[in-house]
Amino acid sequence: MRMYDVIASKRDGKELTTEEIYEFIEGYVKGDIPDYQVSALLMAIYFKGMSEREILDLTTAMAQSGDQVDLSPIEGIKVDKHSTGGVGDKTTLIVAPIVAANGVKVAKMSGRGLGHTGGTVDKLESIPGFRTDLNQEEFFDVVKRTGISVIGQSGNLTPADKKLYALRDVTATVESIPLIASSIMSKKLAAGSDCILLDVKTGSGAFMKTVERSIELAEEMVKLGENAGRKTCALITDMDVPLGNNIGNSLEVIEAVNTLKGQGPADLTHEILYLAANMMELAGLGDEESCLAKAQAVIDDGSALKCLIEMVKAQGGDASVIEDTDNFEKAKFSHEVKAPVAGYIATMNTEGCGIASVLLGAGRETLNSPIDMAAGIIIARKTGDYVEAGETIATLYANDESLFEKAEKKYLESIAFSDEKVIRNPLLYAKVSKDGTKRMA
Amino acid sequence: MRMYDVIASKRDGKELTTEEIYEFIEGYVKGDIPDYQVSALLMAIYFKGMSEREILDLTTAMAQSGDQVDLSPIEGIKVDKHSTGGVGDKTTLIVAPIVAANGVKVAKMSGRGLGHTGGTVDKLESIPGFRTDLNQEEFFDVVKRTGISVIGQSGNLTPADKKLYALRDVTATVESIPLIASSIMSKKLAAGSDCILLDVKTGSGAFMKTVERSIELAEEMVKLGENAGRKTCALITDMDVPLGNNIGNSLEVIEAVNTLKGQGPADLTHEILYLAANMMELAGLGDEESCLAKAQAVIDDGSALKCLIEMVKAQGGDASVIEDTDNFEKAKFSHEVKAPVAGYIATMNTEGCGIASVLLGAGRETLNSPIDMAAGIIIARKTGDYVEAGETIATLYANDESLFEKAEKKYLESIAFSDEKVIRNPLLYAKVSKDGTKRMA
Repeated sequence: MRMYDVIASKRDGKELTTEEIYEFIEGYVKGDIPDYQVSALLMAIYFKGMSEREILDLTTAMAQSGDQVDLSPIEGIKVDKHSTGGVGDKTTLIVAPIVAANGVKVAKMSGRGLGHTGGTVDKLESIPGFRTDLNQEEFFDVVKRTGISVIGQSGNLTPADKKLYALRDVTATVESIPLIASSIMSKKLAAGSDCILLDVKTGSGAFMKTVERSIELAEEMVKLGENAGRKTCALITDMDVPLGNNIGNSLEVIEAVNTLKGQGPADLTHEILYLAANMMELAGLGDEESCLAKAQAVIDDGSALKCLIEMVKAQGGDASVIEDTDNFEKAKFSHEVKAPVAGYIATMNTEGCGIASVLLGAGRETLNSPIDMAAGIIIARKTGDYVEAGETIATLYANDESLFEKAEKKYLESIAFSDEKVIRNPLLYAKVSKDGTKRMA
Repeated sequence: MRMYDVIASKRDGKELTTEEIYEFIEGYVKGDIPDYQVSALLMAIYFKGMSEREILDLTTAMAQSGDQVDLSPIEGIKVDKHSTGGVGDKTTLIVAPIVAANGVKVAKMSGRGLGHTGGTVDKLESIPGFRTDLNQEEFFDVVKRTGISVIGQSGNLTPADKKLYALRDVTATVESIPLIASSIMSKKLAAGSDCILLDVKTGSGAFMKTVERSIELAEEMVKLGENAGRKTCALITDMDVPLGNNIGNSLEVIEAVNTLKGQGPADLTHEILYLAANMMELAGLGDEESCLAKAQAVIDDGSALKCLIEMVKAQGGDASVIEDTDNFEKAKFSHEVKAPVAGYIATMNTEGCGIASVLLGAGRETLNSPIDMAAGIIIARKTGDYVEAGETIATLYANDESLFEKAEKKYLESIAFSDEKVIRNPLLYAKVSKDGTKRMA
C-alpha cells in the first residue's frame, strides 16, 4: 500500500479497501505515515465521506490499535454510556448508580474536562481521597463489589484515535460524521462493555448544533456499535440550556447527590431517568416504560445513592461528603449575578455559560491547567423563566474574588432577554436504536 | 491570522483574503506553519477551488517568497518560455536561438529532468564543457553578447513553490488548476521576463490528459500573467506522440541542431516555428503570420544556428559538437526494435516511451541519479505509419548492453498496432491569449 494512492482514491470518491484502512491506521500509529499525508486524507474524507463498511473498518482498526479491555472476568451485563459533552452534564454520576442498583454493571473509563465542557473524572476527584487511577485489578474488583467503577482513561487505549483527534483539531477536519463516529465508537469498543448508550447532545453548548446532524451522527454510531456486536442505542438530548442548575466540579457532585435523593431539578431528573432506563433496556431488563419505573424505584428506596456511596468508599473517597454534601469544602467567595432588565430569559448561550465557569477556575484551558474543585456557578433562572430587573439569576463561586468581573461579564453576555413569553426546548428529541429512529419531540 | 481559520474558510468554500494568503505563504516558508496544516488546506483548495483574485494573490505571494530576478540591466524585450513538460521536448534549444536571431532577448532559467520527461539543463550539459551554473553577472553578460542564455535554477527562487510542490507531490494535491497555475506562474514572474509564452502539452505523455483541461489551465495562466503585468500567451500542443524522433540528452541536441539547419522532422519543425513566432509576436515583432516568416528566415540564413553556437561558446561549451554533431561522443551499443506484427501504429504511450529512455540511462528516477548523456532512443516509425512485421521502428542507444532488454520491452508495450489506417492528432490545438481562445484544430 502507498499512502499516496489511498489519499488519491478517497479524493476521487472511491471506497478504500479494508486492507488500506488497517495499514493506514497501523502505519500512522507506528509513525511510518507522516501527519501531512494523514491530514490530506482526513480533508478528503471530510468532502467525500465514507461508506458504512469503511467506517466500520476504520472504527475497528482504531479500536485494535492499542489495548482492548476484556471485561469478561466481571459477571453480568456491562453497560457503557457516552455523552458527546455539554455544560453541567453530571449524568454519569447519577445514572451509573441507578443502573448498578438494578444489577447492571458499569465499568467505565471517563475523560477530563477541556474547554467549556467538564469531565466526569474531574468531578469525582472533587471528593477528597477519591482515586481515578485504579489499576485493572482494582478497577474490576470495585465493579464486582459495588456494581460500578469510574476511572480515568489509562494505558494505551486507542492510540490511533489520540493521534487522529489531535491532528483533526488543528486541521479543521473535526466536523465529519465518519470521523466523529469512528473516534467515539473506537474508544467504546476498546473499553469492552456489552451495551453502549450514547447521549448525543444538540444545541448551543454541544458539538452538534442541530437536531438533524445529531440524529445523523447517532444513526451512524448505532449502526457501528450493532455491526461490531454491541447492543447500542442513542438518545438525542437538549444542550441549548445547561443541564440542571450547577456547573463546576463539587457543585455538580452535590446536584447529582440531590438528584439521587429525588430532590434534583426537574430537567435533570427527567433526563437521567430516560438515560438510566435506556441503559437498562439495552441490558435486557425490560422495555423502556418498565425500566423508567425501575429507575425511579431505586431513587425512591435510596439504593441508588447507596451504590454511589459504596463506589466512593471503594475508590478511596471520603463518603462523608456524599452522605452530607455540606461537608464539601466551599469556595471562599460568592457573587450574585443580577438581571440587568426585566423580562423572559430567551436564550442561554450554553457554551458561554461553560466558559464563565472556566473563568472562575472550574475548568481548564489546556490539559495541564490546575482546576479549582469548589469554583463554579449555581443557576437560579433559566430559559423561559420571567425575571425582574435586579433579581438574582445566578451565583458565582470562586476562591479568588478578582475572577468574578470577567466571569460575570461572560455569563451576562451569554443570556438574552425578551419581552415575549419563551417556550423552552424539549429535553429529549429522539431515540435512535437498531429498530430505527423514534422522534420524541 | 490563525492557520486553522484559513483551512476552515476554504473548506467551507469561502474566499481567502489577500492578507490570509500572504501570511500563509510567509509562515510556511519560515517554518512557522507545519506541513500537516498546509496539506489540509491544499486538499480543501483541490475541492473548493480559488477565485481569480485568490490565485493572483497566491501567485504573487509565492513569486515574492524568495529572490526575484531584475532583468532591467539587459536592454530590449526579454521573453521567457515554459513547457509543461513532455517526451522529446527539445523546443527551447531551437526556439531560443530563433527569437534571439530576431533581436529578442532570452534570459532563461530551466530545470533538470525527472521521471519520464527530460530537462533542458541536462540536454545542454551533454555539450562538453557547457556550464549551466553561471552567476548572475555571467548570465546577464551572455545574454547581452549573444541574445540568449539558459542556466539552471539558482539561488533562492520561489522557495514557497519548492516546499508546496514537494508537499503536493506526496499528498495527491498536484492536479488542481489553481495550484498548478500558481506554481508555474510564480516561477515565471520571479524570473523577470517581460513576456511569457506557455507551451501547454496535452495527451498521454503530458500532465494534462485532455485538451479541455489544458485550455482551462492555459486560460488561468494567461489571466495570471496579464494581471501581473506580463504579456502572456499559451499554445496547446500535442504530447500524445513524442515530439520529433530523438529522445535522450545529446540525441535531442543533435535533432535541435538539425532542425535549426532546416533538416528537422516535420512535426518538430512545424511546432517550433509556431512557438518562436508567438514569442516574437508577444515581443511586438508583428502578427503571428509575419513572425512565422521571420522564424523561417533565420533558419534559412543560418543566423539562428549561429546564435546557438555563440551561446554554447559563451557558456564554456565545445561548439565543435554543434558545428558537426558527429563529434558528440556516441553510446557504445545500439539495438534495433522491430515491429512484432505488420500494421499501422495506432497509438504510442508517450510516457512509456519516455520511461524506456530512462531505463537506457538517459533520465533519472530521483534528483540525485547520474544520467548517461549519450543514451536514448531514435524513433523510426510513429503513430499513423504503416510497418511490416520485422521492420525497425526505433533504435535504442546505451553504454550498457544489459539495459536493452527491459527498455525494449517497455518501448514495445507502449506501442499499439492496428489493421486500420490511423490519423495522427493535430500538433497544435489552440492558442490562448488575452484576446481569448482560438481553436486551431
